[in-house]
Amino acid sequence: MRRKRTYDPPESPTSVGWTEARTLRLADARRPFRLEQGGVLREVDVEYETYGELSRNRDNVVLVLHALSGDAHAAGWDRKAEATGRTWRLRRPGWWDGMIGPGKAIDTRRWHVICSNVLGSCYGTTGPASLDPATARPYGLRFPTVTVGDWVRLQAMLLDRLGLRRVYAVIGGSLGGQQALEWALRYPDRVESCLVLCASARLSAQGLAFNAVGRHAILTDPHFRHGDYYDGGPKPNTGLAVARMMAHITYLSERGMHLKFGRRRRDDPDEAVGFGIAFEVESYLSHQGRAFVERFDANSYLYITRAMDLYDAANAWGGGDLVRACRRIRARTMLMSFSSDWLYSPRQSAELALAMCRAGQTVTFVEVPSDLGHDAFLVELDKVGRLVRAFLESGRRS
Amino acid sequence: MRRKRTYDPPESPTSVGWTEARTLRLADARRPFRLEQGGVLREVDVEYETYGELSRNRDNVVLVLHALSGDAHAAGWDRKAEATGRTWRLRRPGWWDGMIGPGKAIDTRRWHVICSNVLGSCYGTTGPASLDPATARPYGLRFPTVTVGDWVRLQAMLLDRLGLRRVYAVIGGSLGGQQALEWALRYPDRVESCLVLCASARLSAQGLAFNAVGRHAILTDPHFRHGDYYDGGPKPNTGLAVARMMAHITYLSERGMHLKFGRRRRDDPDEAVGFGIAFEVESYLSHQGRAFVERFDANSYLYITRAMDLYDAANAWGGGDLVRACRRIRARTMLMSFSSDWLYSPRQSAELALAMCRAGQTVTFVEVPSDLGHDAFLVELDKVGRLVRAFLESGRRS
Repeated sequence: MRRKRTYDPPESPTSVGWTEARTLRLADARRPFRLEQGGVLREVDVEYETYGELSRNRDNVVLVLHALSGDAHAAGWDRKAEATGRTWRLRRPGWWDGMIGPGKAIDTRRWHVICSNVLGSCYGTTGPASLDPATARPYGLRFPTVTVGDWVRLQAMLLDRLGLRRVYAVIGGSLGGQQALEWALRYPDRVESCLVLCASARLSAQGLAFNAVGRHAILTDPHFRHGDYYDGGPKPNTGLAVARMMAHITYLSERGMHLKFGRRRRDDPDEAVGFGIAFEVESYLSHQGRAFVERFDANSYLYITRAMDLYDAANAWGGGDLVRACRRIRARTMLMSFSSDWLYSPRQSAELALAMCRAGQTVTFVEVPSDLGHDAFLVELDKVGRLVRAFLESGRRS
Repeated sequence: MRRKRTYDPPESPTSVGWTEARTLRLADARRPFRLEQGGVLREVDVEYETYGELSRNRDNVVLVLHALSGDAHAAGWDRKAEATGRTWRLRRPGWWDGMIGPGKAIDTRRWHVICSNVLGSCYGTTGPASLDPATARPYGLRFPTVTVGDWVRLQAMLLDRLGLRRVYAVIGGSLGGQQALEWALRYPDRVESCLVLCASARLSAQGLAFNAVGRHAILTDPHFRHGDYYDGGPKPNTGLAVARMMAHITYLSERGMHLKFGRRRRDDPDEAVGFGIAFEVESYLSHQGRAFVERFDANSYLYITRAMDLYDAANAWGGGDLVRACRRIRARTMLMSFSSDWLYSPRQSAELALAMCRAGQTVTFVEVPSDLGHDAFLVELDKVGRLVRAFLESGRRS
């Protein structure tokens, strides 16, 4: 085997091993998908993966919801990584592999885990790079605006198709946390437990601002060409890389960056175009930007960040009143935030927790001490895992 | 008069009125300027302005030091704004006009105020857009790396030329604060009072990261052309605008943005290239980007942010030990930071204050409560002014 792996090999007893995504067509010309902000899709395919067995009475479903740049491949090793050209997956397992597997926090010996790629993304589910059946050309910016609500509705359609009415738990971090919250609000009678990590009821003005600058970098890249760059010519990778580099700063914390890079020098004149790279942190961000454009679509970045902007639980379900919105919830809920997260800060999570309390909900709010900022839900897996495992199990015992 | 003004007219009794910059050649072929990081400039012109009369015994000089995008025009109305094409100055007075003038905190009836433009900038002092006398072409990236130390040395040369040995006070915010600190360290016997606002002994890793992404946006703009874009063709304005928009977020605070913009909508499809502007904060940042490229040079942005990165008072004067560095200082010092500033945070200022205390210095450290983030030193003029006035006067009484 030529494949270089830096993580658990498929043979590990705690790995779900090889995985294979499936795709279901959830909307077609007869049953088109109408989007919340307007627009209709006459063809929607959804890519998803599952891990662990479904119990006989179908009561052990855990729906895992991915963040901005995530995909349906949450755990294990993608058997088709080479065939589909998603070659970065040869080097690493699914994005939450540390959490999902036999014996892990989301224990696949116990739970039937489902993860699907969101609408508008570029990993198998229909998105702006997909062919518009009306024109047989990629949608580009003709793709309709997508929302967290659309995503959750489509996930519900997926579960319907799989014959699953109720889920034991919905869980996600960041934009995935917003989806988890939306599940509890939109389908109160379908969700038993809701775990919202590093997310709040809405993005702050500062978060809106960062997304806006990232999109601006993409939209003004001369290769963006109004989103019609799928002809094999150059892509707006310059803008996308800048957007990712900037966003990456918001995923770390000041202290985390201090500990990881500090002001360590790395004089590397070859690394940049004309101005050299003087500090390690520059080199790191430059690498992040380069790696991202290899695997992500700029239009998807626009659509997904816009969905993140637009999400507002209070407006959607409470006429602007978050407490009123939270009264809808029937799931037991855990909110987890990380002390150094400044994109979705503990203060914002606490506001949501307070609204839930005022709405009479059963809510567990944990602020986990961490220097790793917003990214902590992807990397502080010991801390996250302990809490997630306990919360999942405590609901089942009762 | 066709000029539209939004601030004090020149007739105001607290305005310094019309101002006129002067330029001095401080280095030439006979006396070239050697830069700290290597390289030599055979021609250095420095643009500066002065306000208020010099006292007979030359003991009332206040040197004001500007930040990243600042200039020598700190107060009053630029009489030559039209002639020099700096037309934005027709609409507003100098960048610290609220602080400098008759009766203001830096009272020009009492102090002789001097402000000069830094080396590498684009407002009259020699920089990458200047003609290299060796080739008669603009330097572009052939301009040498500049440092805060170079700036301060050049300011000292300016004062020498003006026959001024000692300054009563040096004062600046942000990158200007780093210059003020460098003055106290480099020329301890020339500085009586030192006021460092919103600055610390060095930029954090997070600050380095933001600068790196901003430069990356410029360097990868296809119109950057290795810095040789002075031929009348398109300039790297796209990258420069992105850099400015992102940096602008770091100048405000999360709470400040929440109070100023919140999530207020402004659906304006014409405002952006193909994706519309949905929120007020997007529109604001987009405006900031557009306005900046009208008045700033992308190469200068590269050079000045790099100087900001490189500044490290402990390394320069204490062999890595900040306390040891601070022992050099003989000026009475005030450090001022703003509670919501996260670019140069109060914690960083407090670290510098602590090092100064440990070095036996007389230091006043004030953390000013403010929601206005790093920009507070430019906008919280009541609060800043009261403290600055008191500190300036208290030194003279003793």
